[in-house]
Amino acid sequence: MKPFASRLAAAVRRCGNPVVVGLDPRRQSLPAPLQPVSEDQVAVADSYRNFCQAVIDVVAPLVPAVKPQSAFFEQLGPAGLDALAQTIRYAREKELLVILDGKRNDIGSTAMAYAQGYLAGPASPWQVDALTVSPYLGDESLQPFLQTAVASGTGIFVLVKTSNPGGGMFQDLPVHDLPLYHHVAKHVESLAAESVDNSGYGVAGAVVGATYPEQLTEMRRVMPHAWILVPGFGSQGATARDVAGAFAPDGLGAVVNSSRGIIFAHSLPEYQDQFGDHRWQEAVEAATRKMIEELRSATSAGRL
Amino acid sequence: MKPFASRLAAAVRRCGNPVVVGLDPRRQSLPAPLQPVSEDQVAVADSYRNFCQAVIDVVAPLVPAVKPQSAFFEQLGPAGLDALAQTIRYAREKELLVILDGKRNDIGSTAMAYAQGYLAGPASPWQVDALTVSPYLGDESLQPFLQTAVASGTGIFVLVKTSNPGGGMFQDLPVHDLPLYHHVAKHVESLAAESVDNSGYGVAGAVVGATYPEQLTEMRRVMPHAWILVPGFGSQGATARDVAGAFAPDGLGAVVNSSRGIIFAHSLPEYQDQFGDHRWQEAVEAATRKMIEELRSATSAGRL
Repeated sequence: MKPFASRLAAAVRRCGNPVVVGLDPRRQSLPAPLQPVSEDQVAVADSYRNFCQAVIDVVAPLVPAVKPQSAFFEQLGPAGLDALAQTIRYAREKELLVILDGKRNDIGSTAMAYAQGYLAGPASPWQVDALTVSPYLGDESLQPFLQTAVASGTGIFVLVKTSNPGGGMFQDLPVHDLPLYHHVAKHVESLAAESVDNSGYGVAGAVVGATYPEQLTEMRRVMPHAWILVPGFGSQGATARDVAGAFAPDGLGAVVNSSRGIIFAHSLPEYQDQFGDHRWQEAVEAATRKMIEELRSATSAGRL
Repeated sequence: MKPFASRLAAAVRRCGNPVVVGLDPRRQSLPAPLQPVSEDQVAVADSYRNFCQAVIDVVAPLVPAVKPQSAFFEQLGPAGLDALAQTIRYAREKELLVILDGKRNDIGSTAMAYAQGYLAGPASPWQVDALTVSPYLGDESLQPFLQTAVASGTGIFVLVKTSNPGGGMFQDLPVHDLPLYHHVAKHVESLAAESVDNSGYGVAGAVVGATYPEQLTEMRRVMPHAWILVPGFGSQGATARDVAGAFAPDGLGAVVNSSRGIIFAHSLPEYQDQFGDHRWQEAVEAATRKMIEELRSATSAGRL
């Protein structure tokens, strides 16, 4: 398989936008036609799978990637993980890139077990294109993911500066006059630079929240070889203007995730009256197209 | 359910030792009688479940807790997660406490999904007694776990100083003249202190590696209300003497994990000739008893 960074660049160029649709199924937020027939975990997991596949049907022709959030599937026990596996497979069949949001990590051979499970291409039962990983255990814990990703044409996104209001508690602590996340970013850049492919980007990317626009601009400068995955758009309050700094001048270099603002668009005031629960897929499409237009207007993604 | 800290103290006192047996099944290391009939993931997952249940049969009368490592089960896809669920259930039936090593975390409502999935007692499909969590996303990300744990009599162990040789890359960075992990430890202590029960310990514990004996002693002092989960004993090179500093004078306050050194004892030189693959469970028992004796001789756990 071609390197992940090249595949991501090609998908973004093909779609003409950098939108990632976050698949965060939540029991209470599902549109009425997708509500489970019972509270049984298998029934809820079936609903999650049906819902995610129906979202994928809508967004596959429009965007380069989806990002399933592992937590919501894990919450349902083994039945939820079956639904996750089916969701990932369905997205790949529809030629979407799949970034699994699992924020995994561990030491040495345990990190290798995660890497082999998720990032080893057809040898992985989950077979995703990229995985989010946590940096707290240091470079040694990132290497098994990197080696696997390089060998298999997959990628990782390392948490650098997260989108939550309280994310700075440790991430912003000052180390040699720079915040901790800056040091993590410099390390991600070194990993990206040493695995760079002819797209100009490497196997290691970074997660930097849309809710910190200035830091996003700074992080783009510090990590010129790293794709940035930007969460926090929409329901977390960030706008297209806020994420402009994440992009390179050619419109590449960043992908922007929206979860609730797209998948549960049917319950947003602006779409509720027009579509309601029963035409919820049309609300998903409208919200996706709106996000695409906003990003193309307010960022260099308009040049794609 | 009683608070986790009290239940852990009671289990450690009842067993007279602080040993946690790590359930890290690895395909290549399974004893011959447990090797899967094929390379199929379902077959390997069946082997993992049978192996873990057989380990549990041996150690349940001896030790207070087991720690399944999620990565090795996840590596097998959904079939592996079925085996994990069955392993957890079996351990609980045998009255072992179950600490799931998943190093999870995420922001806000996503962290709550993890907490509800793992730590909400009978309402959780996984129903474990405690979960390891990562601190990088800050206090805001820990609160959903804490609230759920307080409400359900479960607990968390926050990564503070991990046992891997390269763990210091970020954890040891200097912040206001103290290493980063020290700041994380102080926060864990504040969370433990505010959730303390009549055992003297709180809902939040810490992971501090056995491979850093001096820091372990320091961490015991910094976090007087936090249980410390100590990995790195045995196959990672740490001895009973190395972990002595983790304990309070009464022998409580720390539990020490060994994974490969116990579950794959049949392949260690000291047990291989005596037991071999076919009497591998006797090797598990001998290694467990040896670790118990070592800890009771070299640490305050001897006073239990």
